[in-house]
Amino acid sequence: MTGYFDFNATTPLLPEAREAWLRAAERHWHNPSSLYREAGITNQKLETARERLGQLLQVEAERIVFTSGATEANNLLFSAFTGQTTAISTIEHPSVREAARHWTKVSTFEADGEMPEGVALVSVMAANNESGQLLPWRELALLCRAKGISFHTDATQWLGKLEADFSPCDYLSGSAHKFGGPKGAGFLVLRDENERIRLIHGGPQENGRRAGTENYPAIEAMVTALETITPQLAACDGAGRDAFEAAMQASFEGLRLISAEKPRLWNTSLLVMPRHENLKWLTRLSRRGFSISTGSACSSGKEGSSVVVTALGASPDELRRVVRVSGGWYTTVKDWHELASAFQEVGAELDAGGMG
Amino acid sequence: MTGYFDFNATTPLLPEAREAWLRAAERHWHNPSSLYREAGITNQKLETARERLGQLLQVEAERIVFTSGATEANNLLFSAFTGQTTAISTIEHPSVREAARHWTKVSTFEADGEMPEGVALVSVMAANNESGQLLPWRELALLCRAKGISFHTDATQWLGKLEADFSPCDYLSGSAHKFGGPKGAGFLVLRDENERIRLIHGGPQENGRRAGTENYPAIEAMVTALETITPQLAACDGAGRDAFEAAMQASFEGLRLISAEKPRLWNTSLLVMPRHENLKWLTRLSRRGFSISTGSACSSGKEGSSVVVTALGASPDELRRVVRVSGGWYTTVKDWHELASAFQEVGAELDAGGMG
Repeated sequence: MTGYFDFNATTPLLPEAREAWLRAAERHWHNPSSLYREAGITNQKLETARERLGQLLQVEAERIVFTSGATEANNLLFSAFTGQTTAISTIEHPSVREAARHWTKVSTFEADGEMPEGVALVSVMAANNESGQLLPWRELALLCRAKGISFHTDATQWLGKLEADFSPCDYLSGSAHKFGGPKGAGFLVLRDENERIRLIHGGPQENGRRAGTENYPAIEAMVTALETITPQLAACDGAGRDAFEAAMQASFEGLRLISAEKPRLWNTSLLVMPRHENLKWLTRLSRRGFSISTGSACSSGKEGSSVVVTALGASPDELRRVVRVSGGWYTTVKDWHELASAFQEVGAELDAGGMG
Repeated sequence: MTGYFDFNATTPLLPEAREAWLRAAERHWHNPSSLYREAGITNQKLETARERLGQLLQVEAERIVFTSGATEANNLLFSAFTGQTTAISTIEHPSVREAARHWTKVSTFEADGEMPEGVALVSVMAANNESGQLLPWRELALLCRAKGISFHTDATQWLGKLEADFSPCDYLSGSAHKFGGPKGAGFLVLRDENERIRLIHGGPQENGRRAGTENYPAIEAMVTALETITPQLAACDGAGRDAFEAAMQASFEGLRLISAEKPRLWNTSLLVMPRHENLKWLTRLSRRGFSISTGSACSSGKEGSSVVVTALGASPDELRRVVRVSGGWYTTVKDWHELASAFQEVGAELDAGGMG
């Protein structure tokens, strides 16, 4: 696992989360909507998981809608603003950008710039998935509240990396597999526990807001993961990442760090290599057992991460040389140094015109 | 497990499916859209799972879109017919009925009656979740094909209970947790591998048809479950259910079996008890370790299963006395006899005016 540096794409399942999933799948697999005793117990455990998540996020449990992930949560949110005008930051994840574009009339703005007026909803992510940049979501949430505008933050990259009191936000989305939970679980926090909102129709589950049999095993594992990881976050200080960046700057003249001057997540580094295309770096590092990214996996299909990385300040020429490195809770300073050494080896190989 | 008679609501996870999930979660948790070696292997395994499912269903793998379940699949389908005219049977599951109602202009028809003309899509379930009645989906699929109308069948209750060649259907939906797979996984088969269709926006996954990180562990477990259970279906002949119904009819004068004269799933019995409300039966059976239903768990919230059970032929007065019993692959004839005995005990208790 030490060579895995793509935690922003997905994380390995925490042992505690795996155990929670297994226990739930063994003992509490019953349909929570059924009426016999075991189903009632499953339903109670589901509601307890909702309470526990509410406590972690500092929001009322009744406002939480469990979904299959943050992408569904973001679509659920924007579908509720169908035809209305919304504003999102220039560096949102595609699941916000494309959902906003599909369901609403959307404009973009720089999160540290002027907020558009006359919109029904403002959505600004908590932390950017590419550069790790932290956005002023708290300030924007309070500003929106003062103006009577609804505010949403996609906290997918923040959760499990930093603690927070999300009570200033009207809406909040998150995804289990970004913080050591299973794939297939996420949530949307609503502004109001009585809010009518629905994207997937066909049953009374989740208080009528999300039809389909509740995935209690994955929900239990998700909440367990966040409970497990949260107390460990205080010890995550970015020392390894910073040492990596220093080593990289010493090794590669002309290397550029994106968003390095801004507040960032402790685990993320977005680098413009001074030469050679990013895929060449990625492939050769992979052969050596190191996993990195050329940008968000969610974007790797079509327009790449180009929209966001360009908005983060990369030139068209630089775009092809961008690599993203994102470590995890158990990534050691030694791991980060080994990654820097591997970059040096690969750089020498590429400079020598090695195969591949 | 022997007292569990609510397989139409959900099934316990098959050991083979649990092992498949665990193995995938341990070894192949990487994001299939990432570009390093391990992610590529995960992506290959995901595509192999798609091929395997295609073989089981006898449809081209490229037509399969993995979703979080049948409810999402049904919404994905009907959202693609937004504003168009569709026709569904009178006894569809709420995930078809409400999705059709939300996204399209829908009319209903008796599946064994006259099919409406001038519609873009006809949707008729393969087997009904309440009574187990088998519907003439194959004939309707061929009829629709001849008329140039798209045909969908929600095969959620059929899959894992009967085998089938689904090649006559344009669209098909299914859900893992109804056939021994995990919750949170399902699929929609499309008419055409090149079809553009999307409900959840925000990434190129599933060939642009369903954004969000692919839940490979749950998908692998789903396909493994169907592969495990399919060869065992030939031995499932309804002998236990039939013995149960015979015992019930002998014990309870005036008991009525719904859809008993029609072709049915081998595992399901929908009964109108001659006296006492269904919840009283359910509660007392639960105390004795038997789990049954008063109708679909998906409907238990609001309008109950009343729409469907009424369409199946129950009078308003009978509705309150309807119970559904649905066994599984490992339910023995002895289990079914024990359930009938428990009904007799509960009946005596209720007749005597017992507490509860």
